[in-house]
Amino acid sequence: MLNWEDIFATRSSRMKASEIRELLKLLDRPDIISFAGGIPDPALFPDQDFKAAYADIFSGAAVNAALQYSVSEGYKPLREWLVAEMGKIGVTCTADNVFIVSGSQQGLDYLGKLFLSPGDTALVTWPTYLGALQAFNAYEPTYDQLTLTGNRTPDSYRKAAQAAGGKVKFAYLSADFSNPTGETVDRAGREKLIDLADELDIAIIEDAAYQSLRYDGEAIPPILALELKRKGGDINHTRTIYCGSFSKTLAPGLRVGFVVANTEVIRKLVLMKQAADLHSSTINQMAIAHVAERGFEAQVQKIKAAYSKRRDAMLHALATYMPQGVRWTRPEGGMFIWVTLPDGVDGASLLAKAIEKKKVAFVPGKAFHADGSGANTFRMSFSCADEKTIDEGISRLGALIREETGAA
Amino acid sequence: MLNWEDIFATRSSRMKASEIRELLKLLDRPDIISFAGGIPDPALFPDQDFKAAYADIFSGAAVNAALQYSVSEGYKPLREWLVAEMGKIGVTCTADNVFIVSGSQQGLDYLGKLFLSPGDTALVTWPTYLGALQAFNAYEPTYDQLTLTGNRTPDSYRKAAQAAGGKVKFAYLSADFSNPTGETVDRAGREKLIDLADELDIAIIEDAAYQSLRYDGEAIPPILALELKRKGGDINHTRTIYCGSFSKTLAPGLRVGFVVANTEVIRKLVLMKQAADLHSSTINQMAIAHVAERGFEAQVQKIKAAYSKRRDAMLHALATYMPQGVRWTRPEGGMFIWVTLPDGVDGASLLAKAIEKKKVAFVPGKAFHADGSGANTFRMSFSCADEKTIDEGISRLGALIREETGAA
Repeated sequence: MLNWEDIFATRSSRMKASEIRELLKLLDRPDIISFAGGIPDPALFPDQDFKAAYADIFSGAAVNAALQYSVSEGYKPLREWLVAEMGKIGVTCTADNVFIVSGSQQGLDYLGKLFLSPGDTALVTWPTYLGALQAFNAYEPTYDQLTLTGNRTPDSYRKAAQAAGGKVKFAYLSADFSNPTGETVDRAGREKLIDLADELDIAIIEDAAYQSLRYDGEAIPPILALELKRKGGDINHTRTIYCGSFSKTLAPGLRVGFVVANTEVIRKLVLMKQAADLHSSTINQMAIAHVAERGFEAQVQKIKAAYSKRRDAMLHALATYMPQGVRWTRPEGGMFIWVTLPDGVDGASLLAKAIEKKKVAFVPGKAFHADGSGANTFRMSFSCADEKTIDEGISRLGALIREETGAA
Repeated sequence: MLNWEDIFATRSSRMKASEIRELLKLLDRPDIISFAGGIPDPALFPDQDFKAAYADIFSGAAVNAALQYSVSEGYKPLREWLVAEMGKIGVTCTADNVFIVSGSQQGLDYLGKLFLSPGDTALVTWPTYLGALQAFNAYEPTYDQLTLTGNRTPDSYRKAAQAAGGKVKFAYLSADFSNPTGETVDRAGREKLIDLADELDIAIIEDAAYQSLRYDGEAIPPILALELKRKGGDINHTRTIYCGSFSKTLAPGLRVGFVVANTEVIRKLVLMKQAADLHSSTINQMAIAHVAERGFEAQVQKIKAAYSKRRDAMLHALATYMPQGVRWTRPEGGMFIWVTLPDGVDGASLLAKAIEKKKVAFVPGKAFHADGSGANTFRMSFSCADEKTIDEGISRLGALIREETGAA
């Protein structure tokens, strides 16, 4: 009999089951108040707009094109809409700089494949997006901590990478309302990151999944826009690779995301996609373009109005119910709040008790740390619960933490 | 300035531009009779069925689910429909053995990622599907020639792989009306392949993209069905991984394909997909299930009726117009006929002249050979031209070959 484990390649054997995603599945129980899933509220989907989009496609001249094979770089009108949209946030580019992927997760996978050989180093924040670690893990990198406030020098990164048997290849981060912390990197931090990347001669992967969802505070230009300004306005002189998503603004089920970067990177990614899955769904790219062209801004406003109220409710509830010694972030956008428990209190143990005793769920923070730290942290999402439920859930959680820690 | 070539990982640098696909793009000129593209005829797409499918989804209770994130293994009703469908061709399995991918090309990419470390050997036929070579190339294998009629022993494969610095990991082939030759592996060949795989302890990747499109002759059970029979009917004891497609039967633009295999392989592929692109488009999986459940068989009959006439027309025209010394395959299904020119006549040079002088196009055969042989061969597709155009195109091509070779 075939010994599958023996014939799988090394890289795949190192891929572990995602305990977190398994957890999320378990938490679909109606009796539990779940702040665990990082998904958009389906009640806010522009379903009528999509209904009209598909109906129009099937009534129009492009129906055969919608059902046929298409080019690996993506649907031209969608790429052109994105060029205009990127222009509004300071990124001047052409359609040759825009590449459509099957969700921005695919962009992360391809970038891992493009840059990482086993033993190379990827710089990521502690904590970082779990899905990025999962995507990169397949290419067997070493992780080093990307810190913009600490005292790491370019040389210390270089030496650590060398010791690990490779080179630093890129810095990955979500600069706006990141998953999982909800925090934003300020302008100075972004400039510092560009300095670091220039000195190390590495790429910056800017995960912009939540960038459109700012509820208050002043917008900070994307890292790509700041770098573009420094490099004379020519995107082909930049090293920042911007990964965008329609999953949080329009809908994730169509699997349409995008990458904006210099043409050399885009050209490589297009070849990679041609070999990997030919192209993203033609009809879905057309549907996204249809909906985006007609009402992207209105849809974003609708989502922001709903989510900002939920964020406010969660922040208010945390202030009301959490005992002393518990800290949390105050995000200006996105979907997440990050909670830090007193030292020694374990997020995973707390989750088990929270589900059993209080019927409340969240995601323990350890999984988001490439080095396995962060045991006393957890992530909560406010995107899918109404204000009353948020208040009730945080109240129960606050009571549990008091019971467990004996805090006042 | 950033030296991108220097920081890209080795594996990606080795990916070459697909000259063939570039060629196919150029050949979209209306003044050219093209037998080059291996794509389905859009006039045969079940567009009204898909129109009804999307309309039903948006009018039904599942609209939010259609637009939301979903599980990596795929839409359950589609997997269950496939279980019943596979049962009809001798493959008894459960939904746990079925995995939905974004086109069967993605299945090939994932299988390359799962099995191949650099230097490992993949057995492929000479010639083979170009897209399979492109997908596997990213993982830097060595190729050895899979031959079921020659005198290669398991030991000779094993030794060659060892000399190349790795192990034989799988044999890849399209057993029915293969792309590019149109040829079918008979039952004895399939049984011999299972023997070989058992002896080498490797996987068999059965690319079944064209399997539904048989126009005459008796159907031969899939390799997976034959192996299942040998191994006591338990799919979890089999080593054959069946890659199926809806691109040739329903429509490629939705990017929905599938893999059927033992649960250990499926489990690994699901984890890989979770990390790589989360899941295939939810709404498209629902649309494919909707159309397949209501009229898959009728749609396949419609396509077969149209394509078989075109195949007949091309075979008839070849017999009428080709000079002596030119040979071709007589496929019982699929989309392709494979032509072998007299020794010393180069397919690529012939193409240049065919486009310039005769306004006819095809794909030179060299690209389909992992070892760069096959210079005197080319592929023609009969899927997208009507009978009259086929006759005209082959007539022109026959005249050109006579002019070039001086043959009678």
